[in-house]
Amino acid sequence: MTAPHPDAVMGPVLVVGTGLIGTSVALALRRAGVDVLLSDVDEPNLRIAREAGAGRMLESDDLPVIVVAAVPPRVVPAVLAKASADYPHATLTDVASVKERVLSEALRLGADASRLVGGHPMAGREVSGSAGARKDLMDGRLWVITPLDDSDAEHVARVRSLAETCGAVPVQMGLAEHDAAVALVSHAPQVLSSVLAGQLADSRPEFIQIAGQGLRDMTRIAASNVDLWSDILEANAPQVAAVLDDVIASLVRTRDLLVTSPFDEGDRAVRSVLEAGVVGQSLIPGKHGSAPSAFREITVLLADRPGELGRLFSAVGVAQVNLEDIRIEHVLGRPSGLVALFVQPEAAPRLVDALQALSFDVRS
Amino acid sequence: MTAPHPDAVMGPVLVVGTGLIGTSVALALRRAGVDVLLSDVDEPNLRIAREAGAGRMLESDDLPVIVVAAVPPRVVPAVLAKASADYPHATLTDVASVKERVLSEALRLGADASRLVGGHPMAGREVSGSAGARKDLMDGRLWVITPLDDSDAEHVARVRSLAETCGAVPVQMGLAEHDAAVALVSHAPQVLSSVLAGQLADSRPEFIQIAGQGLRDMTRIAASNVDLWSDILEANAPQVAAVLDDVIASLVRTRDLLVTSPFDEGDRAVRSVLEAGVVGQSLIPGKHGSAPSAFREITVLLADRPGELGRLFSAVGVAQVNLEDIRIEHVLGRPSGLVALFVQPEAAPRLVDALQALSFDVRS
Repeated sequence: MTAPHPDAVMGPVLVVGTGLIGTSVALALRRAGVDVLLSDVDEPNLRIAREAGAGRMLESDDLPVIVVAAVPPRVVPAVLAKASADYPHATLTDVASVKERVLSEALRLGADASRLVGGHPMAGREVSGSAGARKDLMDGRLWVITPLDDSDAEHVARVRSLAETCGAVPVQMGLAEHDAAVALVSHAPQVLSSVLAGQLADSRPEFIQIAGQGLRDMTRIAASNVDLWSDILEANAPQVAAVLDDVIASLVRTRDLLVTSPFDEGDRAVRSVLEAGVVGQSLIPGKHGSAPSAFREITVLLADRPGELGRLFSAVGVAQVNLEDIRIEHVLGRPSGLVALFVQPEAAPRLVDALQALSFDVRS
Repeated sequence: MTAPHPDAVMGPVLVVGTGLIGTSVALALRRAGVDVLLSDVDEPNLRIAREAGAGRMLESDDLPVIVVAAVPPRVVPAVLAKASADYPHATLTDVASVKERVLSEALRLGADASRLVGGHPMAGREVSGSAGARKDLMDGRLWVITPLDDSDAEHVARVRSLAETCGAVPVQMGLAEHDAAVALVSHAPQVLSSVLAGQLADSRPEFIQIAGQGLRDMTRIAASNVDLWSDILEANAPQVAAVLDDVIASLVRTRDLLVTSPFDEGDRAVRSVLEAGVVGQSLIPGKHGSAPSAFREITVLLADRPGELGRLFSAVGVAQVNLEDIRIEHVLGRPSGLVALFVQPEAAPRLVDALQALSFDVRS
């Protein structure tokens, strides 16, 4: 067993639900030497999590200091209420992407408000289940902490410490504030993507045949898990509906501008819609839920020769720099000469030097 | 000078407008040995195109066999009408992404209907101008050909041959059919992206701070060129408005389902919207405007060690396989173990063998 990390949260921590997030939290806690207990009604997930070293089976005489409900939003209230009764001194938290409805339901079922502090780590993967879990999934990500009005400061501090022990950056928000934020940046975009993709289901195949990268980007998240997302959307229905109202109003306005604005008139009214979009797009941070500006971007213009991409990544490997992210400009589908490498700020000068020494055309 | 390609379209071909598409068309024609004449009111673009070897300056005694209007949609009608008068035997075509309104306006200005055949190569880049042009931009892409009712077969055949000479795959459509298709797969998605991004412009910074990869994907095209897109949207206004009407109706229905469906009820109505989205998303071809199934996808699961990405691309280089596309699964921002490589079908077995010989975990 690893020696406990000096600043690590005190265990044992019980993780209920060994899916992607629960198992990743458990692995991150184990990395810091924290004692982790696991529980799940899903036997295969639980077995994989244990075999991956995410923790030990919960026994009847265990007394967890913190209980993390890492189950689907619909199940969180019951799990928190039961944990509140089973462990009368434990801090209670969750990782659900909706807070107000889920936590108020937990209170209604009897969870102790003084020990309950909501949480939402801004991390995920396009795969689900414990097999996709990673101990570094939360590293550098934001972890939204949503205390209730009645949450004791001691329990809030413990959930912050839990987030930090997992490598995340805690950020505090009100419940309604959190739910409005995720409705805007995650839940309403999911609906838009699904609705747009749904239009294609009824369309003529030769229309879809000419689809490009833009449509692929706009509909990628439409392929998401239907069970999880119907659960999330309904749990956050009022906030999602409010954003959709704004989007619908803006679409109606745009539609009306289009049909009333003559083609040969210099004054193009739809321009204002496009301009607002350019401004809004520029505000989005580069990385999901990471602390802002965590990484440096280095752009490389590759020569138009076969093998240049391989030569570039070899050079990165030789320089012993870890890539945090890669973006390859797509010439509507094919990788072109422009590659953006994202690295830790302290590694950036070393990588730039190494690439320039090999005559790569480094643009930033 | 290159010897003419035996099946190449007969020149000289006059390309009016040396932006990204015009210059790329010119370079592709030059690659096939075709005599190319260039003309542009934008002096810097014209100079860069000439220096890149895209063709020679148009002289007053030149008699082009084909004129390609590669100017913004708003300017296409005048360019085609002038070309029709200047060169009474030339085939007239364009590359605009809207056909009905643009070509009917060209006829109104006096372009000869028998010699006019619309065209729209389904290729582009996230950069504009002649500096971004590439001779292989159209290789393997679809090039929609839209004859008018009065177009002579000889001129239709010549435009098909132009597309093929540029490396593209010609596909014939009616004008209204083309415009409805691009409204669905390109123009309406652009409006959705701009409207969604526009919501962010008025929102609180701490909300945007927690934005993830989904929002980044959904708003990427909102950063597109405002001049070009207001031009395109207004030229195709009726068709775009029709798609927006469907999208708005579907969003209103979804919103109503959300606010009327109780959280704790088993029957989740919003599920139908998400399920239609999954179906629609699955219909989109993998590559923009390429002939369907042009590439084979090879998925590699990388070990969780630094340098594996570099080792992979080195292996691809050693195997002398050209990558047509790369997709790296993003763990909400960071490259994870799953990398999809897209290659020509004939190169796939060779690459799989090479990667397996180096103990890579190849999944397909």
